[in-house]
Amino acid sequence: MAPTRYLRSSASRDVNPDLDVERKTPSFDVEKLTTILDGGAENTRVRRAVEAVIHSDPVLSREDKYFLSQNESYEAAVKKAVHLKKMMHQMKWTEAGLESKYCTRALGGEVAFTLHSVFMESILALSTDEQTAKWIPLAENYCILGSYAQTELGHGTYIRGFETTATFNISTQEFVLNTPKISAMKWWPGELGRSATHAVVFAQLYIKGKCYGVHPFIVQIRSLHDHSPAPGVTVGDIGPKMEFNHIDNGYLLLRDVRVPRENMLSRFCEVLADGTYVKRGSEKINYFNMIIIRVKMLSNEVVPTLMKACTIAIRYSVVRRQCELKPGDQEAKILDYQTQQQKLLPMLATAYAFHFMNQYMNELFSKGYREIKQRNFDSLPELHAFSSGLKAIYTEHCTAGVETCRKACGGHGYSLLSGLPSLYTRLAASCTYEGENTVLLLQTARFLVKCLGAAHSGQPVPPSVAYLSAANSERCLVRDKRDFLQPDVYVEAYRHVAIRVLSSAAAKLQALVQSGAEQHEAWHQCTVQLVHAAKAHCHYHVVKSFAEAVEKLGQEAGIQRMIKHLCGLFALHGIFSNTGDFLHDGYISGDQVDMMTASYLDLLAIVRKDAVPLVDAFDFTDETLNSALGSYDGQVYRRLYQWAQRSPSNTKQPNQAYENYLKPLFQNGLSKL
Amino acid sequence: MAPTRYLRSSASRDVNPDLDVERKTPSFDVEKLTTILDGGAENTRVRRAVEAVIHSDPVLSREDKYFLSQNESYEAAVKKAVHLKKMMHQMKWTEAGLESKYCTRALGGEVAFTLHSVFMESILALSTDEQTAKWIPLAENYCILGSYAQTELGHGTYIRGFETTATFNISTQEFVLNTPKISAMKWWPGELGRSATHAVVFAQLYIKGKCYGVHPFIVQIRSLHDHSPAPGVTVGDIGPKMEFNHIDNGYLLLRDVRVPRENMLSRFCEVLADGTYVKRGSEKINYFNMIIIRVKMLSNEVVPTLMKACTIAIRYSVVRRQCELKPGDQEAKILDYQTQQQKLLPMLATAYAFHFMNQYMNELFSKGYREIKQRNFDSLPELHAFSSGLKAIYTEHCTAGVETCRKACGGHGYSLLSGLPSLYTRLAASCTYEGENTVLLLQTARFLVKCLGAAHSGQPVPPSVAYLSAANSERCLVRDKRDFLQPDVYVEAYRHVAIRVLSSAAAKLQALVQSGAEQHEAWHQCTVQLVHAAKAHCHYHVVKSFAEAVEKLGQEAGIQRMIKHLCGLFALHGIFSNTGDFLHDGYISGDQVDMMTASYLDLLAIVRKDAVPLVDAFDFTDETLNSALGSYDGQVYRRLYQWAQRSPSNTKQPNQAYENYLKPLFQNGLSKL
Repeated sequence: MAPTRYLRSSASRDVNPDLDVERKTPSFDVEKLTTILDGGAENTRVRRAVEAVIHSDPVLSREDKYFLSQNESYEAAVKKAVHLKKMMHQMKWTEAGLESKYCTRALGGEVAFTLHSVFMESILALSTDEQTAKWIPLAENYCILGSYAQTELGHGTYIRGFETTATFNISTQEFVLNTPKISAMKWWPGELGRSATHAVVFAQLYIKGKCYGVHPFIVQIRSLHDHSPAPGVTVGDIGPKMEFNHIDNGYLLLRDVRVPRENMLSRFCEVLADGTYVKRGSEKINYFNMIIIRVKMLSNEVVPTLMKACTIAIRYSVVRRQCELKPGDQEAKILDYQTQQQKLLPMLATAYAFHFMNQYMNELFSKGYREIKQRNFDSLPELHAFSSGLKAIYTEHCTAGVETCRKACGGHGYSLLSGLPSLYTRLAASCTYEGENTVLLLQTARFLVKCLGAAHSGQPVPPSVAYLSAANSERCLVRDKRDFLQPDVYVEAYRHVAIRVLSSAAAKLQALVQSGAEQHEAWHQCTVQLVHAAKAHCHYHVVKSFAEAVEKLGQEAGIQRMIKHLCGLFALHGIFSNTGDFLHDGYISGDQVDMMTASYLDLLAIVRKDAVPLVDAFDFTDETLNSALGSYDGQVYRRLYQWAQRSPSNTKQPNQAYENYLKPLFQNGLSKL
Repeated sequence: MAPTRYLRSSASRDVNPDLDVERKTPSFDVEKLTTILDGGAENTRVRRAVEAVIHSDPVLSREDKYFLSQNESYEAAVKKAVHLKKMMHQMKWTEAGLESKYCTRALGGEVAFTLHSVFMESILALSTDEQTAKWIPLAENYCILGSYAQTELGHGTYIRGFETTATFNISTQEFVLNTPKISAMKWWPGELGRSATHAVVFAQLYIKGKCYGVHPFIVQIRSLHDHSPAPGVTVGDIGPKMEFNHIDNGYLLLRDVRVPRENMLSRFCEVLADGTYVKRGSEKINYFNMIIIRVKMLSNEVVPTLMKACTIAIRYSVVRRQCELKPGDQEAKILDYQTQQQKLLPMLATAYAFHFMNQYMNELFSKGYREIKQRNFDSLPELHAFSSGLKAIYTEHCTAGVETCRKACGGHGYSLLSGLPSLYTRLAASCTYEGENTVLLLQTARFLVKCLGAAHSGQPVPPSVAYLSAANSERCLVRDKRDFLQPDVYVEAYRHVAIRVLSSAAAKLQALVQSGAEQHEAWHQCTVQLVHAAKAHCHYHVVKSFAEAVEKLGQEAGIQRMIKHLCGLFALHGIFSNTGDFLHDGYISGDQVDMMTASYLDLLAIVRKDAVPLVDAFDFTDETLNSALGSYDGQVYRRLYQWAQRSPSNTKQPNQAYENYLKPLFQNGLSKL
């Protein structure tokens, strides 16, 4: 695993011939596509420069990742994080800069101190200027390390239900924080388990017996002198997880923990010395920050994970040979099987679709940010609904997609050394964190139902739902399979379904209310269908954005042609996988489904040809992929063998199980043991 | 985690009141259902007796499972296996007996020496009487420990492609085994990595330069004296996997390893002293054994895993409360949300559906076994096709179902302590082992296409495909949502779709051949649709068997009523999730889909009421579940906290990461580091 930057050194490498041939005649300029994906050649240059630095630093090597216990992972992550922060400080790379983003990418997101950033962001968002002046310099200089303690053992999504209390004591001018019962323990906050010295803790504020709802408080967790828990604090690690074992997610139990009045973050409300509660300003800007985190997570974590899984699985699938396609021939590359193409290539198309949707989202949110800075909050409900729904469908599709890629690699995909299991187990968390998907989809649905009502009564609606105002088309007019390759055709089909599914859910809702059901009960009875409507809305937007992005690639004919195939593949895969949605009201007929299927299968064969260049364009280094199956050179079997030999299951001698249990068994036999 | 048998001690336990209330008025006799699931009251008695023994033995405790490294897992598994074998020997519990099966169940399948059983079974199936007499007593008494070395690094499914060679040397009367290249290494065999002394190794047999295909050889891997690798043998562990880290899956590289002529297992063919190759008898019986392994795996491993996941997720979902269903009310149990019901209850129905299908399969295979013992192999193609397809859809649905259960538990489902991640990561392997699912489905499809042709030309076809001979119905005649609850209605709908999808794939195949495509190329172009056809065939059979099983429960009215609801839920969930299959040719209309959806949602609410008794009936002990979320008493938060405190991330002191990296950082700050 010597550091290698393949794009600059491929000539000198011993590339598997089966993989090499896949790269001989790409139908487009791969390097150009990379720069488009990076958002410009300058970004590509910076990224590669950062990767060169990161990958040449032995402290930051991830080659032992798959062999570490939870404790070892944690220790390694802290060591790396301290080293990285020092390096960034020396290189003058700022936290908000491009380099920092590329550091995270190069390291596969496996860095500690993520929650420290959230701690700082929350202070910046929620504190007064004086509070910022006190805490931010300490945090920036790592004299303290922060966590963000919101979720409780018994409460996640429903913030109003939190049970931690902060009671104001006028005489001492302090808040007294308490965990009244086990379910009220803070549970999950990253870096709380073993590292953090401080945390922003959310608690129900009580003044003179009256509850004012949930507020943020800065609480010291551990001594700055010897790291022992602060008085009244019980703190620890929540134990092993499916992944993220390098992070010390923690629990926190508070017993009469006292913090000074100044420790309540008071940008939006303050408790005066006499116990008067003062509210000020709008929290909407804070709300927007929460949405922004969701959007960033999609570009920085969710979509790249699917891209990596596609890279590994597709490269492996042209190296792995199995069975004969034609009797008597050499065993065939598994990517030449239609069933393998049908597993992997739609996932590749999904990665591209979501990438282009991200670009669109980033533009939309930049615009939203400009408006909000001018205290115009009109677009907030739309941005919230949009980002919630997209977060849900991105994480759902990408998580399932990564697992599809993993399974498509058969037995070797089950080895941690393939890199695929940890991509899956890591991404699986994203369906829950930053908002549970079903809850988010229902928030999107609530917005959609409202907008549909507005649209029907002729009121103006936000841009992303303007399509609800137009009449719905009745029938798809396609007569030939090739027509299904036209973006107009499939975008319109998705639009039709989005309107139909939403209208149908809204009609049921209305009927229930009219027949006497209470609003909340009617809503409850429609939730399965409302979730469906929210997904259809988001799916339509992704297809539409992808088709629009293809249009914008006009300058690059080869790339445009290829990306248009991917756009078609993404759209038709969605129809193929959900034909019922399109058939339900006769918008398309069974015969048209057959045409669509034919076009879909044709596209698989077309995209197959350029599958390797299309994943090469993502330009992940071998070190970032950290996969025995997915390296640029395709030396799959050699690498699996080499890496396995490094496993502690081989290096740790002697074999205690043999010495203690097997040896006496073999020597005596079971009957005499 | 003191051993507890809840059914006998629930009165004395501190059961969470929210869970307790769920058990107050079940609509059926839970204990009676348990005995039905066990296959009779005597089985239940034996199972509980075995569980009492296993759970009271501290050596067999699994309470540290989630905290162990790969090496620790392996050592613990060997220790437990030796202990268990000794215990079984003393109790006179045979390997083939009921008690042994229940030991495996009680221990969640986490026992070593599984491959040793396969080693013995393969000797019994493939060896002559003399070979059996030599090797089986040694193996039975654990004087040797065996593995089964078939899969190679570069070859899995396609046995003819194996590259390991065994060349007969007449002068020494030995076979000389070799691994000619890296991809030919044996890779994956369980217990090979660190434990086994011997293995049945599959290799291409060469005599006088001629290849006779793949044959089995007994090869000594390690010294019986000191466990060191035998001459010419390179052997080791393949490293960490997604799960099964208690098993030392291994690699094996052979360099001129010599075994005597007698070590080729020679029941079906022999190499004589002069190098003459003699074939004898039929290998079909051996083939049948392979199918039997698949069927057993479904009852013993795959379906119980889904049952466990349902138990954990459903119990947790009545303890966990979140948000308000009605404004101002207490937070609601999450199982009272329609969206949560829609995630979990169809998985519960699937577990029951597959359980009853297993019973049907077991009868079918017992019949097949009787015929085959009389050397009547007529039913073999059908049994093969059936078991292949069912293995594929069982493992696919159960794996996805377990993950659905895990995700439905939100953040806590991501903790290993919930027990859910390891159920998933373990079961995920089943989609690959014992036949990769796509390959298996295509084998089923090949059988179906053949039978369809036979049916069309009036030839007799096996019972499971007799339905292909009957005319296909044209339209579903349902006019009211309640009609969809009639088994006749949904069984017929599944039958219709199975015929349509298969006929359509076969028609495409025929059209391609008629237009000049070669047979193999035409097949290749239809594989995505053929897989679909095989799934539709299997799905139809599961629904049909489930409906028939409901009929047979006539003696138990309460249970029958409840199981009929589950049958309807399973069937309608399948339609709801694949409406396109049913709408495609107008067999059902969009309006009928809406009626079906209404019935489906009604069933969710009905099954919800008895969800807890329905998982209680699976009767898993707390120790078998090994889940902080799923215990009988529902003390979820208390147990999560207690278990977390036992984690090495808390018990291992001091915190080296603090001492080495954080302390200097906090004391100096980043800028002065």
